[in-house]
Amino acid sequence: MKLYSLKNGVNPRRVRIFLAEKRVSLPIEEFDMESAGHKAPAFLAKNPLGTLPVLELDNGTSIAESVAICRYFEEMIPEPPLFGRSSLEHAQVEMWNRRMELELLLPTIDVFVHTHPFWVGKRTQVASWGEQRRQQLVARMRWLDGELKDREFVGIDRYNIADITAQVALLTARGALKLPIPEDHPNLMRWWNAVSSRPSARA
Amino acid sequence: MKLYSLKNGVNPRRVRIFLAEKRVSLPIEEFDMESAGHKAPAFLAKNPLGTLPVLELDNGTSIAESVAICRYFEEMIPEPPLFGRSSLEHAQVEMWNRRMELELLLPTIDVFVHTHPFWVGKRTQVASWGEQRRQQLVARMRWLDGELKDREFVGIDRYNIADITAQVALLTARGALKLPIPEDHPNLMRWWNAVSSRPSARA
Repeated sequence: MKLYSLKNGVNPRRVRIFLAEKRVSLPIEEFDMESAGHKAPAFLAKNPLGTLPVLELDNGTSIAESVAICRYFEEMIPEPPLFGRSSLEHAQVEMWNRRMELELLLPTIDVFVHTHPFWVGKRTQVASWGEQRRQQLVARMRWLDGELKDREFVGIDRYNIADITAQVALLTARGALKLPIPEDHPNLMRWWNAVSSRPSARA
Repeated sequence: MKLYSLKNGVNPRRVRIFLAEKRVSLPIEEFDMESAGHKAPAFLAKNPLGTLPVLELDNGTSIAESVAICRYFEEMIPEPPLFGRSSLEHAQVEMWNRRMELELLLPTIDVFVHTHPFWVGKRTQVASWGEQRRQQLVARMRWLDGELKDREFVGIDRYNIADITAQVALLTARGALKLPIPEDHPNLMRWWNAVSSRPSARA
């Protein structure tokens, strides 16, 4: 089994944190944006969309999409459960992980791609779309601060994959976008300090 | 148990097709964009993001996000399985459902929101973003046509939730966007005819 990853990639980071929480270690082959080996034919045979991460199983089967990879490991190594323990928790974690993707992570990536100098010449940037997504991201940070008022983690009372998704989104917002968590978001800041001090945060 | 839905809504349609495949029937309260009851305080108490669909359980717990609702019913009513049967299939269906969301459904919704007259005055439209997403949607239809060459359904050899996601995306593309499946996409067309002739397509 082998994981194909991308240096500094937001989604590969999600999977690496997830694997660290599961205490799984496996061989990792890391691509980078400059040499772009993940867009070459040999890799496109594994994942025609050229996205990372990709998990290659021992029989040669490839699994792309971060959450698909995480779900595979959740079934292989059930403890600690990162998708919830009961049917209701499974649904709640799915709901919250999707909210963290749709409301935080995808806007963060859009702001990065459409406004950051790194992407000039690599992608067609639409600055006004990037600005719209920046406003959404800022509004959603405030919403999440309220949601975390009476709750230790995102969605349920136990650290789960929705925490990881929010964590990598806000890590990217703080780093690449210079949009750190505002000081008047005490609950979000408390949560951030908790997830960032877990050993998996360095994965 | 009760489902809150939206008249002509793309995501509520996904859930209704899923429930029809499971042969589940439950009370549905339908909102519409004009009266916008789903943006009123009474509903925002159930889902602060004001999105639909929402499933309300008998104990008052609300589950938002289409796939979270579908996953809940998958656990309550396992047959027929629409998320795969084995751990590998679970991962593959997750991968393909996400591909259908990220590569077809979200672009379709963006083209609709950013270029269609219906949204003028309701949302800040960024026409060039809509055009970029339209090109992506057209390219992904061709890619999916190739992927369906040797496969009856999306991702695995059995009808599953990724088929439903692709189905509602292409239904919206054909209807609201006037972007039907091109005639030189024989595999996608064969698949489309198959999923559209299932009784659930009328849900």
